[in-house]
Amino acid sequence: MFGLMMNAPLLVSSILRHAEAYHATTEIVSRTTEGPIHRYTYADLARRAKKVANALQRLGLKQGDRVGTLAWNGYRHLELYFGSSGSGFVCHTINPRLFREQISFIVAHAEDKVLFVDLSFVPILEAIAETLKGLKAIVVMTDAANMPESGALPELVCYETMIAGASDDFDWPVLDENAASGLCYTSGTTGDPKGVLYSHRSTVLHAMAVALPDVMSLSAVDAVSAIVPMFHVNAWGMPYAAPIVGAKLVMPGPKLDGESLHGLFEQEGVTMTAGVPTVWLGLLDWMDAHGKKFTSLKRVMIGGSAPPPVMITRFKKLGVDPRQGWGMTETSPFGLASALKAKHQSLPPDQKLPLEAKQGRPLFNVEFRVDGSDGKPIPRDGRSFGALLVRGPWVARRYFNSEPSPAHEVEGWFNTGDVVTMDEDGFVQIVDRTKDVVKSGGEWISSIELENIAQAHPSIKEAAVVGRPDERWGERPVLVVQLKPGTNFSRDDLQELYTGKISKWSIPDDVVIVDELPHTATGKLLKREIREIVLRDGSGRSPANEVTVN
Amino acid sequence: MFGLMMNAPLLVSSILRHAEAYHATTEIVSRTTEGPIHRYTYADLARRAKKVANALQRLGLKQGDRVGTLAWNGYRHLELYFGSSGSGFVCHTINPRLFREQISFIVAHAEDKVLFVDLSFVPILEAIAETLKGLKAIVVMTDAANMPESGALPELVCYETMIAGASDDFDWPVLDENAASGLCYTSGTTGDPKGVLYSHRSTVLHAMAVALPDVMSLSAVDAVSAIVPMFHVNAWGMPYAAPIVGAKLVMPGPKLDGESLHGLFEQEGVTMTAGVPTVWLGLLDWMDAHGKKFTSLKRVMIGGSAPPPVMITRFKKLGVDPRQGWGMTETSPFGLASALKAKHQSLPPDQKLPLEAKQGRPLFNVEFRVDGSDGKPIPRDGRSFGALLVRGPWVARRYFNSEPSPAHEVEGWFNTGDVVTMDEDGFVQIVDRTKDVVKSGGEWISSIELENIAQAHPSIKEAAVVGRPDERWGERPVLVVQLKPGTNFSRDDLQELYTGKISKWSIPDDVVIVDELPHTATGKLLKREIREIVLRDGSGRSPANEVTVN
Repeated sequence: MFGLMMNAPLLVSSILRHAEAYHATTEIVSRTTEGPIHRYTYADLARRAKKVANALQRLGLKQGDRVGTLAWNGYRHLELYFGSSGSGFVCHTINPRLFREQISFIVAHAEDKVLFVDLSFVPILEAIAETLKGLKAIVVMTDAANMPESGALPELVCYETMIAGASDDFDWPVLDENAASGLCYTSGTTGDPKGVLYSHRSTVLHAMAVALPDVMSLSAVDAVSAIVPMFHVNAWGMPYAAPIVGAKLVMPGPKLDGESLHGLFEQEGVTMTAGVPTVWLGLLDWMDAHGKKFTSLKRVMIGGSAPPPVMITRFKKLGVDPRQGWGMTETSPFGLASALKAKHQSLPPDQKLPLEAKQGRPLFNVEFRVDGSDGKPIPRDGRSFGALLVRGPWVARRYFNSEPSPAHEVEGWFNTGDVVTMDEDGFVQIVDRTKDVVKSGGEWISSIELENIAQAHPSIKEAAVVGRPDERWGERPVLVVQLKPGTNFSRDDLQELYTGKISKWSIPDDVVIVDELPHTATGKLLKREIREIVLRDGSGRSPANEVTVN
Repeated sequence: MFGLMMNAPLLVSSILRHAEAYHATTEIVSRTTEGPIHRYTYADLARRAKKVANALQRLGLKQGDRVGTLAWNGYRHLELYFGSSGSGFVCHTINPRLFREQISFIVAHAEDKVLFVDLSFVPILEAIAETLKGLKAIVVMTDAANMPESGALPELVCYETMIAGASDDFDWPVLDENAASGLCYTSGTTGDPKGVLYSHRSTVLHAMAVALPDVMSLSAVDAVSAIVPMFHVNAWGMPYAAPIVGAKLVMPGPKLDGESLHGLFEQEGVTMTAGVPTVWLGLLDWMDAHGKKFTSLKRVMIGGSAPPPVMITRFKKLGVDPRQGWGMTETSPFGLASALKAKHQSLPPDQKLPLEAKQGRPLFNVEFRVDGSDGKPIPRDGRSFGALLVRGPWVARRYFNSEPSPAHEVEGWFNTGDVVTMDEDGFVQIVDRTKDVVKSGGEWISSIELENIAQAHPSIKEAAVVGRPDERWGERPVLVVQLKPGTNFSRDDLQELYTGKISKWSIPDDVVIVDELPHTATGKLLKREIREIVLRDGSGRSPANEVTVN
């Protein structure tokens, strides 16, 4: 027997209609790519999003067609979010920081019909102009006065000119809530980027969840600044969550340095913000150097990668409540948030910090499972670890236009690729990536745990741990280190370093000393190459010889 | 094109599974009907709800069958909520305060297959025992030691005995999210009670919305006390919202007097509560009389009927943030909540109060429309008024097993029966019921507004305004008053009373003086009978004669 409630689909356009009707005069403030601060209201956003919708119709797009964007966080990007998804197209946000070949690949793979591009990113498109032949238009998100001349892309369209000619009368279509609304590619360290195709339903449910008190805690008294880019998993849902609750929205444009952010937050009375640790480090350092404080900021959400615990402490000293959030492109992104429970409130700060430094506990609607090396659920003791799997209404069930991926091998679940612990309260801590964990005799050894211990040794400048194939155990851990000038490190030092700190079978079998460890462009250890170094080094060579590879 | 997210239905069982997995040790505290305080955890709730599910299966119920409850707020009622809805049955909460004939009607109309009843309400069922022949079982929600002897109902089953024999191993079925999950009857002043059939989807979406900062603002640091009964629109969603966020849940059982509530709140560290003005008046008066304060309570949600503004002020003086919520059984219930916006924060208290005294502004997902007397949308000026219509995923599209109702006459909308104003920020204020508004010359006159003005006159003890048929205007307002002893009230007084306070055409044509105004059992004016008094009184008789009718 079915309930007798109204059939009201969850749609992105409903978010805009709500803000237009009930938060018409609430402000949206943007630092523009052109320079000046721009301010208008949700009513203005709604009016211009309708112009965008009409302009897209006029380009001859069909329902489900992808509308690509390469843009910073600002009001025009917001108009595209709602104008495209709201009218039945798919808003495809492209990360301009990817390699140009990847951008070419993504535009082609998504079959984008039109690209919208901020002034800053026109040179990227010029560089790949040859690969952009099939598009109906490339629209520069600026006004006529700021339109660039482009030899490589002679037919650039001006955004303001385009929408000036479009009507602001538009009835948002009533779509199926499972219709696609957004597309975002994730670029792993291997293989081509993979597209995650969000639905209206997943977008709305995730945005409601993000606004809850234990996640971002958003309301109509807030001024919310989305610092995480709108090309990173839809700025973690903030462009949707803010209009749902009627919060003022503050957009930083391209300026993410400490001085610019602090100035913007103070000027606009920002109460809540969210972004990655790198950006916050810049902000905190600039504030320290200039003796600045926050007068309005109350909460900060930190995600993308784990913040160092000292960052949590630094925000608290500034009177700001920091909260960690964990997610992936495939999870819309939020699956975990680190809000403490009632039972933790009376803990002393030094006992709160280790909990706050964890990635967090599950949001309602997102279900997790942690499978140990034997494929069975691990004990929820905060120490045992296993592979993190997730499912829920805002988790991807497959990638766009791709073969089934190994991440979806377990029926009904998505394998995050993270190896984690979980405690009895549901707090999850990432200990490694699945591909980096050392699988020894059926047990898993966290490379990160061994690296952190090695990193504290006075002789070691940088340490990596990888698995080396082993006939008896499958794999055994090997420590690879770059030493500080004028120091030594022997096998005896290895034993001494680890004994008593970890179980005996987890202690690396061997140590290899190198001049320098290989890194990715963003500074992460290149484990694949380090594994090759270890293989080349062979198993018989003793570090007592102080062998230096490379 | 469809999105590629997982097909994860929104289910009541998911709420319980979330709390069981991630808030296992969080407490549920109940004042029992038997007397003592009972405490256990979400893990215990989940275990016993599974026993309930197995026991219901054993009774031979089929999917969609209704499980009736007549019970206070407590842990066993909670087990029934999840045990019945979670396993595919419909949890039908029955209001024990209704007339016995209505309860008989409701049990028969809902075709309840089994009734669960608190000790306090066994006498109600005994009184209607003749009408309960078709039930598979009547289960008393107590243990063997407290089981009553009943002549009228000789085959009463003991709840604890029943579930003691049931396994706590149960896999919650994966249902369609549009399956019915709950049933609640609303009793108007006319006609038979009408059933609203909630779905899993509507229940989950509403519970998520209720937890948002601008509604109840619920999180894992809260201890939430559901004072509004679980037989009143599912205690406004709190039994679902608390486990969604992992809040401690505190249930008052039958004791709703000021002393009991204050004691419970203090003892259990309650931070947030919700209920009707009558209960809060009792609590506030008792606290005043005994010089008591709150040490943990931070927020109170007031709904069911509009609180007098002084109640808002009294809560604030006690350091508690009061918030009004508006809803109906047909709207799950919440559609409006009175949280102020950022722009209101700096207003002085006397300018905040009139806003806080309004019923509130729309929650996301609930859309409103206010049609003036001409059927067109009214200006959003906070003064013009019209009929309030509503739609959304947690609004009823029709009543259970009933003919289409006039409330659903406008396609796609539910007519609330309220006449309201709305301001530019979306704040709604109820000015009358549609059936009580006086329709004069195409304009609507609020009977409540005229009554409030009359109520302030020194001679008037109680006032009512109703419409009298009028050939030229359709209807004209007539004031009907009970005077204070030894006072007079003439037509001249009538003119003087209203002149300058309202537009001239709204001033009542006539005044009728009565010994006493007729009321419903719950103290509301019986407008239908008052209209008859006015008709009997005729239009030619002058109040200057001091005519007394009845």
